[in-house]
Amino acid sequence: MPSSLPPPPVRPDTTALAAAIADLSARFGDRCSTGAAIRQQHANSLTWLDSQPPDAVVWPLDTAEIVAVVEIAARHRIPLIPFGAGTSLEGHVNAPHGGISVDLGRMNRIVAVNARDFDCVVEPGVTREQLNQDLRDTGLHFPVDPGAGEATLGGMASTRASGTTAVRYGTMRDNVKSLTAVLADGRVVRTGGRAVKSAAGYDLTRLLVGSEGTLGIITELVLKLYPLPEHVIAAVVPFATLEGACETAIEAIQSGYVLARVELLDAIQIDAVNRYAGLTLPEAPTLFIELQTSREAGRADIAALEALARANGATGFDWAESEDDRRRLWRARHNAYWAIRTLHAGKAILATDVCVPISRLAECVTETAADALRAGLIAPILGHVGDGNFHATPVFDAADPAQVAAIHGFLDRLVDRALAMDGTCTGEHGIGQGKMGHLVDELGAGVDVMRAIKSALDPHDLLNPGKIFASRFGQPRA
Amino acid sequence: MPSSLPPPPVRPDTTALAAAIADLSARFGDRCSTGAAIRQQHANSLTWLDSQPPDAVVWPLDTAEIVAVVEIAARHRIPLIPFGAGTSLEGHVNAPHGGISVDLGRMNRIVAVNARDFDCVVEPGVTREQLNQDLRDTGLHFPVDPGAGEATLGGMASTRASGTTAVRYGTMRDNVKSLTAVLADGRVVRTGGRAVKSAAGYDLTRLLVGSEGTLGIITELVLKLYPLPEHVIAAVVPFATLEGACETAIEAIQSGYVLARVELLDAIQIDAVNRYAGLTLPEAPTLFIELQTSREAGRADIAALEALARANGATGFDWAESEDDRRRLWRARHNAYWAIRTLHAGKAILATDVCVPISRLAECVTETAADALRAGLIAPILGHVGDGNFHATPVFDAADPAQVAAIHGFLDRLVDRALAMDGTCTGEHGIGQGKMGHLVDELGAGVDVMRAIKSALDPHDLLNPGKIFASRFGQPRA
Repeated sequence: MPSSLPPPPVRPDTTALAAAIADLSARFGDRCSTGAAIRQQHANSLTWLDSQPPDAVVWPLDTAEIVAVVEIAARHRIPLIPFGAGTSLEGHVNAPHGGISVDLGRMNRIVAVNARDFDCVVEPGVTREQLNQDLRDTGLHFPVDPGAGEATLGGMASTRASGTTAVRYGTMRDNVKSLTAVLADGRVVRTGGRAVKSAAGYDLTRLLVGSEGTLGIITELVLKLYPLPEHVIAAVVPFATLEGACETAIEAIQSGYVLARVELLDAIQIDAVNRYAGLTLPEAPTLFIELQTSREAGRADIAALEALARANGATGFDWAESEDDRRRLWRARHNAYWAIRTLHAGKAILATDVCVPISRLAECVTETAADALRAGLIAPILGHVGDGNFHATPVFDAADPAQVAAIHGFLDRLVDRALAMDGTCTGEHGIGQGKMGHLVDELGAGVDVMRAIKSALDPHDLLNPGKIFASRFGQPRA
Repeated sequence: MPSSLPPPPVRPDTTALAAAIADLSARFGDRCSTGAAIRQQHANSLTWLDSQPPDAVVWPLDTAEIVAVVEIAARHRIPLIPFGAGTSLEGHVNAPHGGISVDLGRMNRIVAVNARDFDCVVEPGVTREQLNQDLRDTGLHFPVDPGAGEATLGGMASTRASGTTAVRYGTMRDNVKSLTAVLADGRVVRTGGRAVKSAAGYDLTRLLVGSEGTLGIITELVLKLYPLPEHVIAAVVPFATLEGACETAIEAIQSGYVLARVELLDAIQIDAVNRYAGLTLPEAPTLFIELQTSREAGRADIAALEALARANGATGFDWAESEDDRRRLWRARHNAYWAIRTLHAGKAILATDVCVPISRLAECVTETAADALRAGLIAPILGHVGDGNFHATPVFDAADPAQVAAIHGFLDRLVDRALAMDGTCTGEHGIGQGKMGHLVDELGAGVDVMRAIKSALDPHDLLNPGKIFASRFGQPRA
């Protein structure tokens, strides 16, 4: 159980850094900034990890400009940190070794929407909300929903994001048809075309998706789109036991219901949203279900689902069809994260996640809740049940070493528990800086394989060093 | 348009080869063979590519034995060619540089079926038919169906196989949760656990799936399983035009029908099956559709689908519900490949495929058919329409240089056409020996990235050299 703390930051050579920034300023003018506020905005601040600002920020407008940035960075051996919206949770946009943040927010054009092919071509800075707004007259949508509406599609691809709809539509792994990226040596690689599938060599698309900016800077994405569902029904279902809630999800999937979302809030999380949003939900493990069905089959489906839930100990079953009613019904779910942040303002939050086989989910959640209790932590739990993925968000006082130690112990045990159940140390947040040790626990020699790939493609560790595994920066440079 | 012919075979050093075979014989006894018939059986013989038998065949029984094989091969710098059932179509199991075929057929245990997690753990030699037979009492199935029932799941993963059901269930890319593989240096790597999703570092699972045995020898797979469909309806629908058939598929997907299969046979292919199987189908572009639906919705769905097809120029619409009736209705589809082989016995067949965005499929198929006609080739076409993937299987006399040249021209133009439509040079057959040049046409610098990964993980090119890209064997050894 290695510590999850990132290594102490090591700065690149200051002369080289100054020269790189001078080159960038000459090339990009006021689209290169070293202002303190700007730099601070580009460091991670959403989580327990310390912010580590870059030395400068640059805003390229197209692929050629990214190539120029990479060439300058390579010439001076300065790290580059690709930046989308900064909504990632494991320090992905931090600059532990200094360097240049490459803000892709101005590359936000929707290049093409191919409705008949159920795909679109976007630049990396397009947000998922922007894309869905643009698609609203096509009858199509892009369904991956990590919870942060302002998340960029490039960032979502880089972290292999997923969220509430993955049980129905999969993750970014499943929804990027191909992409274009600038590699560490300035080469531009397009990993495929717009075909739905390909057997043409190594799957470079999937290699880059989830590589957290360490192998290339994504400059364009081809994304899958889906028809808007014909009819949606939402339900909120409290259970006597956590096992009953999980069992209901398993049986619903076995029975072939098309669940678009199956979210679990534990009693502590329900208590938090009740207090935050003035709700009066029973303080019990509660499923938030979204069913996609045909209008005709809807009522029959929801009745069958209620029977299934009641047989597993549901103590209530509210459901709704209209968009307004559904939004009202799901208010507790939408407020889950902000309820915690607001009720515990001034405290730090560990926003972490693991993912286990669904048959082990109830056990893993129960043991995790008991462990938090023993450690004296308030740790609300929220799960994407259909995937066996859940979030624990314990709050703590970052100034209290005892609480920090307790959090570390809690996190290490959480990951050990998930791995013992043949799960993964992260279902959707990624490794970043926060889970480098846990990645080794999970994959062992697999991490050496990742390092070998990284070394082959980025021998000087220019792209987002110090993420996924420790950087070679800080060693004498080659 | 480079030639697609594989490079001339180069043999490894004969002394080293003899020493390696001696070591293998000492270790594996009669599970290592150099018999001519055995070696011949392990070379590809299904396609136009010449058979290139290995120097010996070895049958390991577990991961540790594969490690032993790899260590012997590494010591003597002898190529290893992983072998499943030999049903691949691009020379994947050929031994252009000699070496040892590693037959995984005796590693055919189903290690675990986890019904509640919708997954199973299998050894690579398990066939898809064996697995589905084993699953028959669970209500689950493994749906990927490349057409060859005897294909092994390890081989299917290695070639990123798909087939008729990919429109509903995806390809092997989507259905391998994780895998264990022995790398070229003898390390055993497990790429993940049984969680549905993971954001833990580079996606090594997807890197190995489709790597055609060039990066590792798969020793175990965790596969996704699915509930058996509640109700299945099959339909056979001839169309006045190819465009009408393709448009029907697009509109059906847009309307949200759950199409499990959407196959297109062109008029030439229909003529072949009519003659081969004594059928009397109209010689027209014909869709073979399989719809998965609820029993209640079935009749309504099929009526709506017929209306949609008629509006697009369908000239008939036969459908069936019982398994026997469905099999009878689909007889033409099931006989498609053997109809060609039998009607043109003694001739060679180019069994190739490309994949394009579905909106371009009708155009691509039409142009391909016209091109074959101009080239004097009989080239039946069969498509997985929902994926924009189609097969052309022109027959030719391999002894006639003019016909061989015509075939090469046809293939190069087919790939150029697909790439010009933003498609891929292969949707499901893979690169193997047959499409190495086309891969460069498609991905350019991307192939250099693949080579860099290959060199990092297998610097001596021990694992299936001469597939995907040319081998360094034949160059002086390092």
